Amino acid sequence: MHIGFLVFDGLTNLDLAGPYEVLARIPGARPFLVGKTATPVRSNLGFILTPDKTFENAPPLDILVVPGGSGVNDLLDDQETLSYIEKSSHEAKYVTSVCTGSLILGAAGLLKGRRATTHWMARDLLISFGAEVLPDRVVVDGRIITGGGVTSGIDFAFELARRIAGREIAEQIQLTLEYNPKPPLDAGSPERAGEGIVMDVRACSRQMLHERRLAVIKAANRLYANES
Amino acid sequence: MHIGFLVFDGLTNLDLAGPYEVLARIPGARPFLVGKTATPVRSNLGFILTPDKTFENAPPLDILVVPGGSGVNDLLDDQETLSYIEKSSHEAKYVTSVCTGSLILGAAGLLKGRRATTHWMARDLLISFGAEVLPDRVVVDGRIITGGGVTSGIDFAFELARRIAGREIAEQIQLTLEYNPKPPLDAGSPERAGEGIVMDVRACSRQMLHERRLAVIKAANRLYANES
Repeated sequence: MHIGFLVFDGLTNLDLAGPYEVLARIPGARPFLVGKTATPVRSNLGFILTPDKTFENAPPLDILVVPGGSGVNDLLDDQETLSYIEKSSHEAKYVTSVCTGSLILGAAGLLKGRRATTHWMARDLLISFGAEVLPDRVVVDGRIITGGGVTSGIDFAFELARRIAGREIAEQIQLTLEYNPKPPLDAGSPERAGEGIVMDVRACSRQMLHERRLAVIKAANRLYANES
Repeated sequence: MHIGFLVFDGLTNLDLAGPYEVLARIPGARPFLVGKTATPVRSNLGFILTPDKTFENAPPLDILVVPGGSGVNDLLDDQETLSYIEKSSHEAKYVTSVCTGSLILGAAGLLKGRRATTHWMARDLLISFGAEVLPDRVVVDGRIITGGGVTSGIDFAFELARRIAGREIAEQIQLTLEYNPKPPLDAGSPERAGEGIVMDVRACSRQMLHERRLAVIKAANRLYANES
């Protein structure tokens, strides 16, 4: 079972590291990081990630996992990456994303008419790609499974692990990882965090979100132009 | 604020990646991976991690984070690493661990008479280093903060972020990472998982746990011999 985790400059490391830790423990899993080239990439926080495979030499994927991050903005215009994702999706049993990775699936044309989720700050953007966007932490629509922001990747991965390997294996992995979360604060969603914190977080991301909006509009226009 | 995350062969990537994603977002944080040498290491699941710094060229640490993993067994006998940890602890504001990283803190002599926690399968072992072991997800004893198994590193990091940067910043980070966990299964602790799953997980780790027990006994003997 080949599980390819897309890596690119500016990804959010935990979007990938959470699901990797869960899915790599499924019996028979062969997880690897797949990059456009073999050159190491840097996460948005400076973490170095080294691809195990490239678009050229990676085996066909049973599961594709696309993480998000600020680097998503550039990928939305990267035909080579979008084409790799689109091509990989033909044979994959599951095509998945965490956080704003769903925007990449969208730009690759994989979310038209599909139910999907994404980071709470990107919900309005995901609609541009024809998705029916739900505010849920994990959304399953056939073989397309999408997770919400960053840490939702862990919940997403357990949902996927249960579907692939059954409840007992998934529970063994949950116990191994002691996934019994107890957040010491209660600000994990816009509803819980309250208006002040939401405004602070939006303010910090203003410039990135502006650029993202432009990149999404461009990618969505191209997607629909190709269709007509 | 220099935050050093120890890396070594056989670490559990998520022990490190969870806290990194939280702590690196604190204003003024300068996070880096610190290894014995600059050579990349591999996690217990094959994930490649590239040190940013080495024991030799890392700046003095304000915060030390020691992850766990099967590779802990070898580190328990690695005087160079134990001595780096012990030395770093003198000036650090916080000396911390996630999962079985606490065994390394213990072997370095930092947990004598201290309250601490660890992965549920390692609780009895941690006692060997003179710690008062609690079954909690996060334990704070002065400047020593320890987390339980793997995913508890995220809860640990939010607790630490609140102490360093205050509640508001910690809440902003929580919202950014959408840390509003909703595990789709309920087997995250031995009590919740039930006896069958606990036995399965213990069975899978039997050989590693046997070797760990021998390594802990040796390390504890050395620690107490050095004292007397």
